[in-house]
Amino acid sequence: MAVLAGKTVSPPPIWLMRQAGRYLPEYRQTRATAKNFLNLCYTPDLAVEVTLQPIRRYRFDAAILFSDILVIPDAFDRNVHFVEGEGPRLDPIGEEGIRKLVMPDISQRLAPVLTAITRLRAELPAQTTLLGFCGAPWTIATYMIAGCGTPDQAPARLFAYQYPEAFEALLAIIAEASAEYLIAQIDAGVDAVQIFDSWAGVLGQHEFDAYAVKPVRRIIDAVRSARPSAKIIAFAKGAGYNLKNYRAGTTADAIGLDWTVPLDFAVELQKDGAVQGNLDPLLMVAGGQALEAGIDRILDRLGNGPLIFNLGHGITPDADPENVTRLVERVRAYAA
Amino acid sequence: MAVLAGKTVSPPPIWLMRQAGRYLPEYRQTRATAKNFLNLCYTPDLAVEVTLQPIRRYRFDAAILFSDILVIPDAFDRNVHFVEGEGPRLDPIGEEGIRKLVMPDISQRLAPVLTAITRLRAELPAQTTLLGFCGAPWTIATYMIAGCGTPDQAPARLFAYQYPEAFEALLAIIAEASAEYLIAQIDAGVDAVQIFDSWAGVLGQHEFDAYAVKPVRRIIDAVRSARPSAKIIAFAKGAGYNLKNYRAGTTADAIGLDWTVPLDFAVELQKDGAVQGNLDPLLMVAGGQALEAGIDRILDRLGNGPLIFNLGHGITPDADPENVTRLVERVRAYAA
Repeated sequence: MAVLAGKTVSPPPIWLMRQAGRYLPEYRQTRATAKNFLNLCYTPDLAVEVTLQPIRRYRFDAAILFSDILVIPDAFDRNVHFVEGEGPRLDPIGEEGIRKLVMPDISQRLAPVLTAITRLRAELPAQTTLLGFCGAPWTIATYMIAGCGTPDQAPARLFAYQYPEAFEALLAIIAEASAEYLIAQIDAGVDAVQIFDSWAGVLGQHEFDAYAVKPVRRIIDAVRSARPSAKIIAFAKGAGYNLKNYRAGTTADAIGLDWTVPLDFAVELQKDGAVQGNLDPLLMVAGGQALEAGIDRILDRLGNGPLIFNLGHGITPDADPENVTRLVERVRAYAA
Repeated sequence: MAVLAGKTVSPPPIWLMRQAGRYLPEYRQTRATAKNFLNLCYTPDLAVEVTLQPIRRYRFDAAILFSDILVIPDAFDRNVHFVEGEGPRLDPIGEEGIRKLVMPDISQRLAPVLTAITRLRAELPAQTTLLGFCGAPWTIATYMIAGCGTPDQAPARLFAYQYPEAFEALLAIIAEASAEYLIAQIDAGVDAVQIFDSWAGVLGQHEFDAYAVKPVRRIIDAVRSARPSAKIIAFAKGAGYNLKNYRAGTTADAIGLDWTVPLDFAVELQKDGAVQGNLDPLLMVAGGQALEAGIDRILDRLGNGPLIFNLGHGITPDADPENVTRLVERVRAYAA
């Protein structure tokens, strides 16, 4: 929380995107007891348990609510389900479907998530930050248009070119629902929130401004106008040079950096405020000298400014839990 | 060729990556006569025909040899083949396999490609530039390690972390073969060459310098030392901010810009020399106002400097050939 306020903390706090996940045997065990993936997200007992697992094991500085960005399309009744080994499926939406979308009652539809948050805040150590999150409208829209994950998100990009007004309307209603969702998360007990724009990297500059910056700004404005002290991290994966104006454009407190963001650029971005990232998640698989060198490069360049140490993307199922131990130890041993 | 020498030409010359491809009915007709995809590349009659098709139709300023970047692994006997609808397959290589790699006799192994080039140069109008190409070592290595295309190129990235020496050896021998191949292409008649690093976008800064910049520099040094007047375009797709030092690092005459490179950044990059790109290929599907606006934005920002107009990636099979006509007309109507 201090880093989100722009302070430099040494050693920097650390958590990992997707830290509650398949690389942990205890996660796989709990996962096996759930009927399906959404059931895991919507059963507070299970969501609380898997959220706490990596905290027990590694004492990360932050816990992130176990959930999924697609709970928002699910709240819009888009028939979201997860096909084992294939990823998410939902009913694809077109121009007419967008016109018919009705704002759901988010607090009612996503009540189990909010229950899990309240219990987590009570069960977590006081010094552990609890993070909530949602997907950014662009990323959510890519799934809603295509009905599944897609390489290069071509269906949504094409739809945006062909039906710009319908597409803007879709982003607007997703942003409205997402803001309501984040406010409800804050009220339920999260300390800060992260907005994940996982597919921002396929957008050209004009589209990045219109579809990645503007809708996230809309969410942040709505959240801050309702809860002025809200702290927000925005993560536009793969955005490259487009990150240059991302903090100013979105007004996020911290910006996430994927592993391809050069440290030269990260240093520039850190001059304007907190950054989060950006170790290659594959180093949690590789380990060894490559891991140590990767950690040290980040600490050397970013450790004397406001930094939340994290991976540049979610940890992968084939990561070695021992490498996570090594990572946490090495970061905690750092003194700026 | 004037733009590659750093001159501003108005209107800018135009060609499209993958301009000889499935969006053209005449291509699909010729393709149907070939036994398989590699057979199309290795049969001079067919390769010449499909290379010429888009020149006849659109009078592009450059023809690019119809071939594939995987002819280099094929020359290394990696059992390259193309599975319809699934993409390339080859025998995956590991540490031991890399040690056993032997430099092939490129001019002999890829003789049909060189024959096609000589015939193309004779058949093309004198004012049409003939481009040769090869894949960059990093991109070629991602296929050789994984044995197929992979999301995020995780197998190669992981291999590079775990076996850095073997990986450097693999890049070195690919670079050596590629340089020999480009020199042979120049001798056979191409006017300039492009090096495609299609998967450069997944690399962090340290890895980008080691795996994307250095091996391409090695190719360019070898080509220029043999053929001092060689003109070379380097295209690192998805490289984002890493493009900042790409021209200086590789010494390429022109650098390619994918459609996500912001025009603000492109303008900076153009100050150091020619750039090529960067229209979103999906605009060849979408057409209409979005297409016109996209073309105009590029011309407005980059048209008064050394620019080769192109897409930001290959044209897709679902592109409308009429949109290509509109594109060429609009670019040709431009006066800086």
